[in-house]
Amino acid sequence: MNYDLDNLPKRTEKPRQYGFTMAMDKGLSLREVEDFIETSGPYTDIVKLGWATSFVTPNLKEKIKLYKEADIPVYFGGTLFEAFIVRNQFDEYRKTIDKYGIEYAEVSDGSIELDHDIKCDFISKLSEQVTVLSEVGSKDDQKIIPPYKWIALMQAELDAGSWKVIGEAREAGNVGLFRASGEVRSGLVEEILTKIPFEKIIWEAPQKAQQVWFIKLLGANVNLGNIAPNEVIALETIRLGLRGDTFGHFIGEEATRIGK
Amino acid sequence: MNYDLDNLPKRTEKPRQYGFTMAMDKGLSLREVEDFIETSGPYTDIVKLGWATSFVTPNLKEKIKLYKEADIPVYFGGTLFEAFIVRNQFDEYRKTIDKYGIEYAEVSDGSIELDHDIKCDFISKLSEQVTVLSEVGSKDDQKIIPPYKWIALMQAELDAGSWKVIGEAREAGNVGLFRASGEVRSGLVEEILTKIPFEKIIWEAPQKAQQVWFIKLLGANVNLGNIAPNEVIALETIRLGLRGDTFGHFIGEEATRIGK
Amino acid sequence: MNYDLDNLPKRTEKPRQYGFTMAMDKGLSLREVEDFIETSGPYTDIVKLGWATSFVTPNLKEKIKLYKEADIPVYFGGTLFEAFIVRNQFDEYRKTIDKYGIEYAEVSDGSIELDHDIKCDFISKLSEQVTVLSEVGSKDDQKIIPPYKWIALMQAELDAGSWKVIGEAREAGNVGLFRASGEVRSGLVEEILTKIPFEKIIWEAPQKAQQVWFIKLLGANVNLGNIAPNEVIALETIRLGLRGDTFGHFIGEEATRIGK
Repeated sequence: MNYDLDNLPKRTEKPRQYGFTMAMDKGLSLREVEDFIETSGPYTDIVKLGWATSFVTPNLKEKIKLYKEADIPVYFGGTLFEAFIVRNQFDEYRKTIDKYGIEYAEVSDGSIELDHDIKCDFISKLSEQVTVLSEVGSKDDQKIIPPYKWIALMQAELDAGSWKVIGEAREAGNVGLFRASGEVRSGLVEEILTKIPFEKIIWEAPQKAQQVWFIKLLGANVNLGNIAPNEVIALETIRLGLRGDTFGHFIGEEATRIGK
Repeated sequence: MNYDLDNLPKRTEKPRQYGFTMAMDKGLSLREVEDFIETSGPYTDIVKLGWATSFVTPNLKEKIKLYKEADIPVYFGGTLFEAFIVRNQFDEYRKTIDKYGIEYAEVSDGSIELDHDIKCDFISKLSEQVTVLSEVGSKDDQKIIPPYKWIALMQAELDAGSWKVIGEAREAGNVGLFRASGEVRSGLVEEILTKIPFEKIIWEAPQKAQQVWFIKLLGANVNLGNIAPNEVIALETIRLGLRGDTFGHFIGEEATRIGK
Repeated sequence: MNYDLDNLPKRTEKPRQYGFTMAMDKGLSLREVEDFIETSGPYTDIVKLGWATSFVTPNLKEKIKLYKEADIPVYFGGTLFEAFIVRNQFDEYRKTIDKYGIEYAEVSDGSIELDHDIKCDFISKLSEQVTVLSEVGSKDDQKIIPPYKWIALMQAELDAGSWKVIGEAREAGNVGLFRASGEVRSGLVEEILTKIPFEKIIWEAPQKAQQVWFIKLLGANVNLGNIAPNEVIALETIRLGLRGDTFGHFIGEEATRIGK
């Protein structure tokens, strides 16, 4: 760090099992990837190439190489997995992963309806090839999944071989864990946490208010995902209680009153 | 493309007469232009230097050169045309276009009240010099133009020499074609399309929901404009049915149900 | 400028005492800083390294050097000052400023409750070391300060040694000077201006509608702050009446009616 500040919350260190930040690259150029690594590499634990953007970005091989050289794992967004399987191209998906030297994969059903046993079967098969993240929750804001079912789905997916489970929110943060307004479905989150260990969950939380909410509930080392590359630095300050939103949370509110 | 996916909607190819994407550069640096071309050049058909930003950006000549080398035509935003004509400097405008080697021009009346015969006269004169795009719709959200009048204006401007007509939405997507909330004035769009061929219209649609709406209505190859440079990749995935929003639209909803 | 346009509002020139733009860097890479300077250097008078982002950005020394070479002063956001003083580390703060060759400092109490005499004492001490900007207004949207008190606070801080006083709005523009919706508290601003000279105040105005409001009230040369780096060019066009929002304001509405 650039100077000394006392009494900061202790952050986990790379390679992190929890306290990690998953950023979403939705089409950065090679130079932009270099810039992102320069500023935010120390605070970025894994990068998702958002949904199927990897299909159209011209610089894919070189981009993956840059992330690898910086020891930041990369994976294809879950929508790409779904795009392959609705076309009965699961084998091509597996080959594509190998072709690009990808070591993580996301199994999701945000844009499709997928029998859960079949989903777990995909997780199981892929977990023999790569480290699997699986996602629970629909991108369709009309499909509300009750808390007990979120828990059952998450547990089954972990049992099938998922390394972490992801709570769906999209790039915009307005479905799944969140209401259309972006507000957290807090009862849902709290009920999930009674059964699933917090370090096994990555909460997609693209909006600042959502990040703040999770950090206040679960501390500096909560796993957060779908962070825009140019917001990773800002998120790190929120984790450390160095932005207005969490300023008094870690140091204690009484410390923030001076002469009053 | 980086890998094979079956059953994608067929996209037109460059140089496109329709299915094209107009991006808005509102002050990119030279390196940012290079980065944009690297990632999004294949999907960008024309670039507008937003409103009068070209007046203040220090790198104008070099920027235009970069776009030209990438075979992406550039033009000055319509507000610049308006800035010249309210000052009685139309001749200087024509000279400025030539000085910078610009081959397209936009004629608009979004911030002014311009007699329509005079507007068509400007279109006619400029069309002898460059390829003209003309824009219909006011930037003033109080000025609601009824559908029959949109059609009459568009037709008169095409007759006067416009290559394409643009439906106004601003950078924010909250006027003209759209309500202040950003919602599409869908009856307006549908009525326009009964009279004006869809390939002659560029719909300004800076917001994702607006892009999705037009793609669902008119297919992968609708002309869309005012796209932020860092959203062109995302737009291309929406056109291809590879993002959640249009995922089931092209492949068919039944294909998205697996084991259900 | 790239071409001639008559009848533009006259802008002050660098080094500006008023009419200046304060931009907020919240974690740019070195190359992004170079790009920002290339496009927006002529229109950027001072840069704030947003809140405590300077604690975590790896490139701090080099970044400050780049800004210095471009003759753009840099300072640490007020939240960093607060982070030091709630830890009783004011001396370390002063040393950190010197270590990085920073010549400006912000004294604020947006995230803390700070007795105002103590605040003025900090201003007074720091003003012997550097040029001080001090900020009035809370980041807490529940803390509404009445107009007469804004005036008293601002005057006391100027008397204590502040070069300029800043009206708080946050990065988002939704507290302090603004309602949660982002709407300006216009009565507050007008009352402040009856007592404090407009060139002594920097209005944080990150949202376009807020910038437009201040420019319409106070002219092209109002001091505006918390401008995103990629919006400085856009702001300059608004100051010059070259964007739709202020198009008729400087040239006169009658000039915008042609043949009508």
